Amino acid sequence: MNGETETHTLSAADKNRLDGLRERLDAAAGLELGYPVAFDIDYRALAPFLGYNINNVGDPFQHGSYRLNTHEFEREVLAFFAHNTRAPKDDWWGYVTNGSTEGNLYGLYLARESLPDGIVYFSQDSHYSVRKNLHFLNMRHIMIRSQPNGEMDYEDLRESLKIRRDAPPIVFANIGTTMKEARDNVGTIKGILDDLALGQHYIHSDAALSGGYCAYLEPRPSWDFADGADSIAISGHKFFGAPIPCGVVLARHNNVQRISRAVAYIGNFDTTVTGSRNGLSPLMLWYAIHCLGDHGLKKRIDHSLETAAYAEEVFVKAGIEAWRNPQALTVVFPAPAKRVRDKWQLASSDGISHVICMPHVTRLQIDALLTDMLTARGEAA
Amino acid sequence: MNGETETHTLSAADKNRLDGLRERLDAAAGLELGYPVAFDIDYRALAPFLGYNINNVGDPFQHGSYRLNTHEFEREVLAFFAHNTRAPKDDWWGYVTNGSTEGNLYGLYLARESLPDGIVYFSQDSHYSVRKNLHFLNMRHIMIRSQPNGEMDYEDLRESLKIRRDAPPIVFANIGTTMKEARDNVGTIKGILDDLALGQHYIHSDAALSGGYCAYLEPRPSWDFADGADSIAISGHKFFGAPIPCGVVLARHNNVQRISRAVAYIGNFDTTVTGSRNGLSPLMLWYAIHCLGDHGLKKRIDHSLETAAYAEEVFVKAGIEAWRNPQALTVVFPAPAKRVRDKWQLASSDGISHVICMPHVTRLQIDALLTDMLTARGEAA
Repeated sequence: MNGETETHTLSAADKNRLDGLRERLDAAAGLELGYPVAFDIDYRALAPFLGYNINNVGDPFQHGSYRLNTHEFEREVLAFFAHNTRAPKDDWWGYVTNGSTEGNLYGLYLARESLPDGIVYFSQDSHYSVRKNLHFLNMRHIMIRSQPNGEMDYEDLRESLKIRRDAPPIVFANIGTTMKEARDNVGTIKGILDDLALGQHYIHSDAALSGGYCAYLEPRPSWDFADGADSIAISGHKFFGAPIPCGVVLARHNNVQRISRAVAYIGNFDTTVTGSRNGLSPLMLWYAIHCLGDHGLKKRIDHSLETAAYAEEVFVKAGIEAWRNPQALTVVFPAPAKRVRDKWQLASSDGISHVICMPHVTRLQIDALLTDMLTARGEAA
Repeated sequence: MNGETETHTLSAADKNRLDGLRERLDAAAGLELGYPVAFDIDYRALAPFLGYNINNVGDPFQHGSYRLNTHEFEREVLAFFAHNTRAPKDDWWGYVTNGSTEGNLYGLYLARESLPDGIVYFSQDSHYSVRKNLHFLNMRHIMIRSQPNGEMDYEDLRESLKIRRDAPPIVFANIGTTMKEARDNVGTIKGILDDLALGQHYIHSDAALSGGYCAYLEPRPSWDFADGADSIAISGHKFFGAPIPCGVVLARHNNVQRISRAVAYIGNFDTTVTGSRNGLSPLMLWYAIHCLGDHGLKKRIDHSLETAAYAEEVFVKAGIEAWRNPQALTVVFPAPAKRVRDKWQLASSDGISHVICMPHVTRLQIDALLTDMLTARGEAA
C-alpha cells in the first residue's frame, strides 16, 4: 500500500449490514447440495493480497509494463493443468479466466479463427451458456441428441457429420454435463471424425466441472489433449472451491498464435478475452494446488465419490429413483417438492434434480435431505 | 464455512514465496504512475468474505436458487451508478462485470441485437479491446479520425455517417481515452445523428476511466443517459481502486429484455455475459461507495485534478512539452528514456507517455519522476 493511504471506514449501520450478510451466507452454506462448488478449502490466508491492485493484464507468458501482477504464479498454475490435461510439450498456451463461460468462449473463438467456415456440433445437454457463446460469435451450429445418461449420442453425431462433410466440424464436448455430469468421450468423437476422413476439425472440451479431477480417475476418462482435444476449459471455483469464479483455458499454441496481437499500451500481447485480468484468482489456484498437491486432490475426489455412492445407495433404498453416471459426484433423482428444492438449493431442470457431492458434503447432510424428501412425499401422499 | 473444513496449509518454502510476492508488490506499488488504478482505498476489511463461495450467477434483479450471493448489494451499487449516469427512471438495467472489456462487449452486443444491420463507428483513440470485441461479435465497423487531443473528429463522423445513411449507426463513444483521457461529447454525437435524421441509432459510452468521476465534475461532461447514451460501461478497479478488475454496465431496460432468456438450471434469467459471476466485486464497490459517499468521492477527484495540474505545471516549467485535456487526471508528454518508463511503469504508445494522477499519487512522486526524466535527458544530451 502507498504511504498516503487514507483511512476510510464504514458507519456502524453499514458494518451491521456486512455482519448480517455473513450470517446469511453461513446459513446458506450449510444447506447447499445442488451446485458444484467445494467449500472445504479456506482461502482466507490470501487476505493480505486484497491490499494490492494486482492486474494480470495481457499474456501471462510475456512481460508487460505494469508490475503489480502474479504472472509467475499464473504460469505455474497453467503448467499444473497442462500436465493434468496431457498438453503437447512446448506446444500449449493458456491463461486464468473468470470462469468456464469465458474459457469456452475462448475455445470457440480459436476454433472459429482456425476454421472460419466450421460448424459447431454440441449435445442438447450442454450448458446454457454454449448457445449464448455461439450467438456472440455468430457461428453456425447443430445440436446433437443426447443419450438418456446425458452423454452425446455418437450415432446422431456421425449421421449429422456425414451429410455436411464439406464444412469443417468443430465439436464441443461436455466433460461433465450440468445436470447429470455425463462425459462425452473425446476419443470416440475423434474416431468418428477420422473415420469420415474429416481431417480438418477442432475439438473443444468443456471440462468446467470434471476437468478438476479427471486426471485422478481410474480408468481415466477420454477428455484431454492426448485424447484429441484442441482446447480445454476448467473451472477454478468448482472442484478447487476458489471463492471467486475463475478457471483456466488451455489450447494448442499454434492456434493461439493466429490471434495474437501486440498492444503498445500495455507493452504486451493481447491474446486473452479480457483486458484487465484478475491477479488474485491465479494465486487462489496456486494456493489450492500447493496446499493439497496431487495426493490431496486425489484423496478429495475419492472421498467425494464415496459420498456420492452413499447418497445413491440410501436414496435407492428409500425408494427414490436415484442414479449416477460412472465415476460421477452427481446423483440424479426426480425433482422433489419445491420446499425441499428451495431449502437445499437444488438445481432442477426437466423434472429432475441432483445433489453434487463436492468434498465438503457430509453423509449427515445427505441423510437430512433424504428425511426432508421422504417427509414431503409422505405429506403429498 | 462448513463444519467439515479440513485444514490445508502451505509449506514454509511456499509461504516464503507469497511473502516474496508481497515484497515485490509493495515495491512496484510505490513506483506506479502510468496506469489508471487508485491505491488509496484499503479493501482488506472485506477479507472475511474470502471464506465463502459467493456466486452472483444470473440476473441481479431476479431470485435464483443458489443463495450464496450478494445480489442485494449489487443492486445498490447499480442504483448508485444509475443515479450518477442519470439513467431513465424505471427503465434501466445493469450488472457488475469483470471489467470494462466485458461491459463494452455487453453494450455492443445489445447494440447488435437492437440493430442487426448496424455499423459501429469508433475513433482511432479507442481502447485496443474495441476491435477485438467487434471481431468477436462479427460487427461491421468504421474507424473515425481523432482530433490531436484524442477526441473523436466530429466532422469525420458526420461525413462517414452521411454516405451510409441506409445502415443504422452504432456510435462507440470514449469517455476518457486510454492515452490522453479525451472524452467524446455524447451530446454532440447525438446532435449529428439527429441532424442527419438517423432516428434509429445506438450510442454506447465506454466510460471505463472517467465514468468513476464524471458526475462530480463541473461543468459536467456530456456522456450519460440523459445526454443520449443507450448503455454505459464503468470500471471498478480504476477510480474506485477495487483490488480485482471489475466494473458495471448499465443499459436501457427495453434493449436488455430483447436478449433475456430464462434458464431452468439456475432458476434465473441469463441476461449477463458470464454465467458464474463474482460476488465479491459488488461488495467492494458497495464498500467504497459507503466508505466515501458522494462527498468523499468528490474530494478525491478534486485532489486528483490538483495533482494533475501540479504535474503539468512543473513538467512545463522544466521544459517538458506536457499537456492535458480539460478536467483530466492524465498528463501527456513525450515518452522519456526507456529506463524511466520502466521504473515508473509508464504506459507508452506512438512516442508519448502519460502519468495518471489517481487519488494516491503524491507530489513527491511527481517530483521524483521529473528528476529522473531530467537526469535521463541530461545524459542523452
